[in-house]
Amino acid sequence: NPWAPARWVGFLKRVVLHPVRIVPLAYLCMISIGTLLLMLPAARTEDAGGGFMPALFTAVSAVCVTGLVTVDTPTFWTPFGHTVILGLIQAGGFGIMSLGTLLALMLRKKIGLHGQLVAQSETHTLNLGDVRGVLFRVARIMLLFEGATAIFLAGRYWIAYQENPLEALWHGVFHAVSAFNNAGFALYSDNLIGFAQDPWIIIPICLALISGGLGFPVLIELRRQGFRFGSWTVHARLTIYGTIALLFLGTLMFAAVEWNRQETLGGFSPGGKLLAALAGGVFPRTAGFNSIDYAAAASETLFITDILMFIGGGSAGTAGGIKIATFLVLGYSIWNEVRGNGQVNIAHRSISSSVQRQALTVALLGVAAVIIGTLLLLTFTDHTLEKTLFEATSAFGTVGLSAGITAGLPTNAQVVLIVLMFLGRIGTVTVSTALALSLRPRLFRLPEERPIIG
Amino acid sequence: NPWAPARWVGFLKRVVLHPVRIVPLAYLCMISIGTLLLMLPAARTEDAGGGFMPALFTAVSAVCVTGLVTVDTPTFWTPFGHTVILGLIQAGGFGIMSLGTLLALMLRKKIGLHGQLVAQSETHTLNLGDVRGVLFRVARIMLLFEGATAIFLAGRYWIAYQENPLEALWHGVFHAVSAFNNAGFALYSDNLIGFAQDPWIIIPICLALISGGLGFPVLIELRRQGFRFGSWTVHARLTIYGTIALLFLGTLMFAAVEWNRQETLGGFSPGGKLLAALAGGVFPRTAGFNSIDYAAAASETLFITDILMFIGGGSAGTAGGIKIATFLVLGYSIWNEVRGNGQVNIAHRSISSSVQRQALTVALLGVAAVIIGTLLLLTFTDHTLEKTLFEATSAFGTVGLSAGITAGLPTNAQVVLIVLMFLGRIGTVTVSTALALSLRPRLFRLPEERPIIG
Ligand SMILES: [K+]
Ligand SMILES: [K+]
Repeated sequence: NPWAPARWVGFLKRVVLHPVRIVPLAYLCMISIGTLLLMLPAARTEDAGGGFMPALFTAVSAVCVTGLVTVDTPTFWTPFGHTVILGLIQAGGFGIMSLGTLLALMLRKKIGLHGQLVAQSETHTLNLGDVRGVLFRVARIMLLFEGATAIFLAGRYWIAYQENPLEALWHGVFHAVSAFNNAGFALYSDNLIGFAQDPWIIIPICLALISGGLGFPVLIELRRQGFRFGSWTVHARLTIYGTIALLFLGTLMFAAVEWNRQETLGGFSPGGKLLAALAGGVFPRTAGFNSIDYAAAASETLFITDILMFIGGGSAGTAGGIKIATFLVLGYSIWNEVRGNGQVNIAHRSISSSVQRQALTVALLGVAAVIIGTLLLLTFTDHTLEKTLFEATSAFGTVGLSAGITAGLPTNAQVVLIVLMFLGRIGTVTVSTALALSLRPRLFRLPEERPIIG
Repeated sequence: NPWAPARWVGFLKRVVLHPVRIVPLAYLCMISIGTLLLMLPAARTEDAGGGFMPALFTAVSAVCVTGLVTVDTPTFWTPFGHTVILGLIQAGGFGIMSLGTLLALMLRKKIGLHGQLVAQSETHTLNLGDVRGVLFRVARIMLLFEGATAIFLAGRYWIAYQENPLEALWHGVFHAVSAFNNAGFALYSDNLIGFAQDPWIIIPICLALISGGLGFPVLIELRRQGFRFGSWTVHARLTIYGTIALLFLGTLMFAAVEWNRQETLGGFSPGGKLLAALAGGVFPRTAGFNSIDYAAAASETLFITDILMFIGGGSAGTAGGIKIATFLVLGYSIWNEVRGNGQVNIAHRSISSSVQRQALTVALLGVAAVIIGTLLLLTFTDHTLEKTLFEATSAFGTVGLSAGITAGLPTNAQVVLIVLMFLGRIGTVTVSTALALSLRPRLFRLPEERPIIG
């Protein structure tokens, strides 16, 4: 009997509740609810037009914690709309942190049990036990960081910007949540450009979004191990050192190009320039706030920012991109290949070739997504490669920076960005997990042959 | 005694005559001689300015069979200058075909003897015996193709374009050599734009450059095996099927974008459109001739062409890029990873993981070269990303198409293109060979650890 309840439960377990498939399903659910709520008249101000696309685009952008917008967040949506957006950001950020952590945990247990790919190692600190534990700890760590940032920001808005206490608190909470979740939504029409030279706003926001961007596994390890560098796992080392290096490089290159350009930093004080350059290094990875107008930035800045946005932040965190660990595993693979080592070792641990192949696959599928997205944007609009590549990378990396063209895109180009945001948010984590789970050994080997490379 | 002749011979053998190092040395030699010859007053017309840069740039472009030019080939150089350029193209093309083949042969013998990476396989048809044999056969095959093309083109120039017999013969020889060597130099100021709708010129040139671009190992295999597809080696399959697929895709996408654009194909007859679209699919890989003005092409066309130029043609041939075999090995790696196979098999042969890592390294070093080159061009000039990326990719892929900015570049930007041409021409073949030769097994394995990918 095909209609027996047992079959349905079996179907549900096999197809819908498959650990990898549950992530896209959860996100599709959140996006649907968000779109419906944002289509309510109560969500929009009187002047704002109706229609489906702004609601869909904003819901996807919020749930995928991207921050690209086709409408002006403060004026298009009512306070109720803002609350919905805040909820979507919180749900999306919580989802990616907890689901990413759970998938990594599951992978470690599954692969560890079979003993084929990874030997259980004592230095693995990610050992939380069960799903409820992960969810609880993720929620606690999020509230902790968001609470601290919110209090700090609210105080500053209250004292320095003459906002009334309630308004200051609401702005503090909204921007703290937006920052820790790397969402990039702001309740000011010029995003954070008005605060570009205020360190009391920029620095707490930077700290919140770097923390969120490190990812839950690294945060929990930092809490347990602290700064005893020697005992960090390979994953923590890659993510933390990579984050520091990319921040430094990004800030340096941003400063080098824009320091004296009148369109961006030219008019700032030296301190303001430094702060804006810091933000220019931090925000592309992958905050989505902007304290300068990227539509006015130099071509070099846009191109460097493209690279930073594509690399992104830490795994199982609110940052996007292909992730720092993925990028560095690939880098180490090549470095070892160039030096003639058949094996990749990082900090006295070896990285199995299957992990290297997964990194390669995630990175190149990402490149393919960005290239195809850019080509479609070029076809659907009259914008330059510079701007379409920037927008496509920003969407894929769930960064949310804009070279100024998103607001005016036609519907088909908006759909391209929606797909890129979705792929960028859940694609990398689900693809890499699915790859690791599906790996099966071949029973026989064919004779080898060597095509000529290069 | 450190001055004993034996020590010098030893040094010469170890350092200068190292099989990998001999390739860049040979090319530096050719470039130096070419630059000196092109600096002679006899090489330049009376109006042409003096100076070092045009000679260096043209010599590099000719030896690396690229075709990018900073000066107008027909009017800047005298017939003596044209003869020097022809000689450099011939030497550069012969060099890459024979040295590339010899390195591949050496690799096969060396790795085959050690038996570590590749099992000797009977289907390997590349079995020429010794250096003299390779040089002789490469020379013969080049003369054959160039001769046939030259006769055909000379006839057409004589009959249809009223050139006198001697002029027609010279034009025929020059463009035949330029075509088979994928050099892209032409003796017409508008390159081949004037012949865009003449199939009797375009088709022989296309055939010559596709043949040269397949590479010597594939040509020799085609001669031996003919079209008995089943007995082709993996390398021949990848290169031939890849070439066909890329030609088809390139033509299709070019036609789709440019068919009705007034700036390019809009004014042509349907037959002329088809022919120009075919050329638009063939020339980027990696002929460097142009029958349309790429400065007027759509953004999409430039971007698609970037991708074709980067992939390039066959190994040990006159085409550039990272090579089709490299690209397809990477593609197969990812495809197998996605399907959950731990092993990559192509046509009942397995591709060892060391070959895959070499392909990855060559491709990503290529990406890095193009990205850094583009960034430098963006910094040194005021051109857009669209055009600088196109020019950098064209130089790295030794393609020679130009979005119209090479002629006006400042000296520092010209140096960037010179370095990219040199890296693109000899970088891929030497890097991949050096990687394969330097691979040494590790004696112990460290415990494994698994960073979170994606
Ligand atoms: K973001
Ligand atoms: K060329």
